[in-house]
Amino acid sequence: MSLLDILFGRPLASREERAERIGSIAGIPIFGLDALSSAAYGPEAALTLLIPLGAMGVRYIVPITLSIIALLTILYFSYRQTIAAYPGGGGSYTVARENIGPGAGLLAAAALMIDYVLTAAVGISAGVGALVSAVPSLQPHTLAICLWILAIIALVNLRGLRESGAVFIIPTYLFVGCLFAMIAIGGIRSVAAGGHPTPVEAMPIMPPATATVSLWLLLKVFSSGCAAMTGVEAVSNGVKAFREPTAPNAQRTLTTIIVILMVLLGGIAWLASAYGIGATNPEKNYESVLSMLLRAVAGKGIFYYVSIASILSVLSLSANTAFADFPRLCRIIAHDGYLPRSFASTGRRLVYSQGIYGLAVLTGGLLILFGGVTDRLIPLYAVGAFLAFTLSQAGMVRHWRRQGGAFHNVLVNGLGACATGVTTIVVLTAKFIDGAWVTVLLIPVMLIAMVWVRRHYQLVSEETSTLEPANFGEIREPIAITPIANWSRISENALRFAYTVSHDVRAVHVSAGDQTEDAFCADWTKYAEIPARKAGLPAPELVVLESPYRWVLTPILNYVLDLQKQNPDREIAVILPEMVERHWYHYFLHNQRAEILKTWLLVRGNQRIVVINVPWYLKA
Amino acid sequence: MSLLDILFGRPLASREERAERIGSIAGIPIFGLDALSSAAYGPEAALTLLIPLGAMGVRYIVPITLSIIALLTILYFSYRQTIAAYPGGGGSYTVARENIGPGAGLLAAAALMIDYVLTAAVGISAGVGALVSAVPSLQPHTLAICLWILAIIALVNLRGLRESGAVFIIPTYLFVGCLFAMIAIGGIRSVAAGGHPTPVEAMPIMPPATATVSLWLLLKVFSSGCAAMTGVEAVSNGVKAFREPTAPNAQRTLTTIIVILMVLLGGIAWLASAYGIGATNPEKNYESVLSMLLRAVAGKGIFYYVSIASILSVLSLSANTAFADFPRLCRIIAHDGYLPRSFASTGRRLVYSQGIYGLAVLTGGLLILFGGVTDRLIPLYAVGAFLAFTLSQAGMVRHWRRQGGAFHNVLVNGLGACATGVTTIVVLTAKFIDGAWVTVLLIPVMLIAMVWVRRHYQLVSEETSTLEPANFGEIREPIAITPIANWSRISENALRFAYTVSHDVRAVHVSAGDQTEDAFCADWTKYAEIPARKAGLPAPELVVLESPYRWVLTPILNYVLDLQKQNPDREIAVILPEMVERHWYHYFLHNQRAEILKTWLLVRGNQRIVVINVPWYLKA
Repeated sequence: MSLLDILFGRPLASREERAERIGSIAGIPIFGLDALSSAAYGPEAALTLLIPLGAMGVRYIVPITLSIIALLTILYFSYRQTIAAYPGGGGSYTVARENIGPGAGLLAAAALMIDYVLTAAVGISAGVGALVSAVPSLQPHTLAICLWILAIIALVNLRGLRESGAVFIIPTYLFVGCLFAMIAIGGIRSVAAGGHPTPVEAMPIMPPATATVSLWLLLKVFSSGCAAMTGVEAVSNGVKAFREPTAPNAQRTLTTIIVILMVLLGGIAWLASAYGIGATNPEKNYESVLSMLLRAVAGKGIFYYVSIASILSVLSLSANTAFADFPRLCRIIAHDGYLPRSFASTGRRLVYSQGIYGLAVLTGGLLILFGGVTDRLIPLYAVGAFLAFTLSQAGMVRHWRRQGGAFHNVLVNGLGACATGVTTIVVLTAKFIDGAWVTVLLIPVMLIAMVWVRRHYQLVSEETSTLEPANFGEIREPIAITPIANWSRISENALRFAYTVSHDVRAVHVSAGDQTEDAFCADWTKYAEIPARKAGLPAPELVVLESPYRWVLTPILNYVLDLQKQNPDREIAVILPEMVERHWYHYFLHNQRAEILKTWLLVRGNQRIVVINVPWYLKA
Repeated sequence: MSLLDILFGRPLASREERAERIGSIAGIPIFGLDALSSAAYGPEAALTLLIPLGAMGVRYIVPITLSIIALLTILYFSYRQTIAAYPGGGGSYTVARENIGPGAGLLAAAALMIDYVLTAAVGISAGVGALVSAVPSLQPHTLAICLWILAIIALVNLRGLRESGAVFIIPTYLFVGCLFAMIAIGGIRSVAAGGHPTPVEAMPIMPPATATVSLWLLLKVFSSGCAAMTGVEAVSNGVKAFREPTAPNAQRTLTTIIVILMVLLGGIAWLASAYGIGATNPEKNYESVLSMLLRAVAGKGIFYYVSIASILSVLSLSANTAFADFPRLCRIIAHDGYLPRSFASTGRRLVYSQGIYGLAVLTGGLLILFGGVTDRLIPLYAVGAFLAFTLSQAGMVRHWRRQGGAFHNVLVNGLGACATGVTTIVVLTAKFIDGAWVTVLLIPVMLIAMVWVRRHYQLVSEETSTLEPANFGEIREPIAITPIANWSRISENALRFAYTVSHDVRAVHVSAGDQTEDAFCADWTKYAEIPARKAGLPAPELVVLESPYRWVLTPILNYVLDLQKQNPDREIAVILPEMVERHWYHYFLHNQRAEILKTWLLVRGNQRIVVINVPWYLKA
């Protein structure tokens, strides 16, 4: 078993693809981790903006959460329809491209790609941030831990889909189970106490109000809470990863994810309101809302610690959704020619390895750039998701109108498009100064790059593609040239091969005035000319090039280029004998002139100059 | 004028070599900087060991310096003779090798090479150390300054000999002039004051004696003072760099260097003794002996600062001697086959560029390893020099006996051999624990490496060298194979070239089950077979290889290796079409499979598998 096999698992044959597909049980952790984990920070983000309203502010969380749940319901039905309409995988890119146009598709693609990189970076650094605030001695190693987790997630994903589902299944269901238990216990206690339960432990006192409520404030609260909705689109991109029947399996997975997410969001909002728990100031004596709720409901026992651990692991693993989806998105875009083609080929474990590498490199770069602390990136990252949502929903509206879909189909997606469109504008406005402008700048750059890539591929294709039969007329022998430094078995071997290519053979010797090196020239007749004539071949010509500056390669290069100019109708075959060393450390003992000359000929040459490497395997 | 020309100067033709040679005026800074600059730290090193004897200790400096000067005199006459006997360059390596044997030569070579690397590293870091203690704000940049100076010295040396002489001439003569002036002024004042002059400025008070004098202590003082003698051998290695008549010019240079060095050593010892100035403790309120002498003789005026500046620059430039000599030494060793051959070839400015790169890399590595503070290396570095001196002198003794030289010749070199031999043992014993053991360990490692290099070259030469005429009998066409992914102008081009090489042409297609890719197979008859028959050529065979794991290169590689096994008497020509990109950033848009397959074929193939690169130049 090779090292590669141990790291990545045995290679999978193409016919095994079907067996690698997943059901909805495994689908939830793979495609839902991002959406579900956002329950841990969405409500918190909303409550944080309500701090200035004091204890009264907490009241607003229930109506705002209800409006987020309403938006989520619209999105759910929209995406359910999208999955049914695009069983081959209907991400925003595909839907927008097919129904609105390539420009809209690329816009959605760029927005989503930015979003996935941010999801991966923010997910990992949020998890590590929580871990580090629990164990402060790890603080100096923040970046290193982030990069290790990134490497592990990338590795697990390179091993293939099914395996990553298996790895993430436990923390995901533990997380859901713990939060469900919390909501159930808290709910029963709340009802038993007539809506005003007493926390098991003392809660921090809310600071006094410093502001009054305004529509603008509520809009900002809403747009912050919308962070909880990123990741909802993942399932629709990955339909093809599900077992047959794919669309129903994908829909079932989407339903489960959305229902769980709604319960979590609603439950958390209700408990916060019932217990009167608001967010704490992040700058001093910070405690997360979920931590307070858990303490209030069940005290700081084993249940508390298990729940906190599951939250941490789910947060840092939420990056995995990006790893499941980003390579699929890149594959579709690469298939259309807007990204390098290698993104479209499947690796040894039937995953799109290049996309995984790409995401890992970009995420790692972002983590290194921000030293593993990506708090400042959070504002950037709902914009992309909602832009993609909007384009996808708008595309679906056109889809139904062109396909003649039922009125309720148009209505559902139209409602989705309007709701997400408005939300995009709200989020962009509310977060523009905080960093959303970076996304606005990045998107056009990516659009230009993608269009440029496709243009290049098109030009290459125009230049090289042909449906004509080959033209084998006028095939003439090339002129064969071989550089020769001194007479040896290696040069003899190259000269022999030259005769298999052509009868017009020239040996080129560069003379720097060193007599011992040039000695063999005098014996050229004996070494080469007579044997050639004996074998019935034309004698090889010895061309001696003077090199006053002791350069070896330049004279040969110039000779070849000149010869090509003088014989524009003939091909020149440059035969380079190459010593193959048995051991890497022999590399330093022999010059690498053959390799350098080959590169020079490629760079300076033209289509009629062909390089032939004749290897000589050293036994020494 | 290209960038290379600006950095390194225009290339020099081989016939210009004579004009690049130097006279003795330029020879002194080039080959003498190391020896002369040691006047700045040799006496200091000796005086430091005398500190425990208190004010009385300073007395011993004059007799010890006289014994060092006596040893220097012996060495001088020895090396004068060596230069006359070896006008082609008679370093320790050559002399020991020719007269004692290859083993002794290599031993001397290894010792000298270690010594030169240490000279370069210690010289630069000593200069920078002095600079940094004068300007403490530069302290954090010590390593960076060291590496910059190293780069400048290497660059100047790559520009060629004459230029480096010109650059170093001013600081060298300024240094000598200042110290001569100091000795003259101090000497006159001392004589005028009846041997007990009063310092112009107050001198630090010597600490009380804490030890009594012993023979072991005096031996250690002597061996520390011997550091002043390293670098004396440089001229004898570089005889060939001098203008005609080479030997007399080299001898004149050696004479001048030794006389100046003796005057400096003697003068410093005398003044120190007359003024009663000892070394200060390096750990607190440190002031160098030369600085104190300068203050005592002439006060802290302009003269003081100019002198200090010249000392600093000479110290850090003393590394240049290593750069002048190390490449020459490597060249001679490489010429004998004990070092990679590239060390023996002259670069664009007629210097041995590889040796300069090698020394720069080793010195840079050492500086980085020690963070630019190489104080701890000083103990290591007289051992190598004295070992080489001893071997060279012993070799000269045998030389005279074999050549029938006069008795005084044998006497001079015999005396030299004994004196330096004893000194080697004294230095090794006195400094063994402090670090000389590293040298003792390193030398055998280098010996083994050099012997191994030579053995490798010999085996290669045995394997490849021949004086037989070429055998052009039984030249048969190879089997031509070209991989083909789809039908395009590029594959047509490769197929066309295949027919210039052979009539047995096979196109290999790897199928991973992708139908769009395999589409052209059905039309193979139309695309290739019919046109070939029309042109009177045998039709190319299309070989389709199944690849269930979607690998592209492995099936081709295996096919080629199998085919070679089945046709052991024939050559296989693998024709690889290669797209040549116009811009570096196109690299990412096309796969590099041709390059990878070529490497695999080289690694796994054999002498009968030849790779032919047919380039396709993209216009796009």
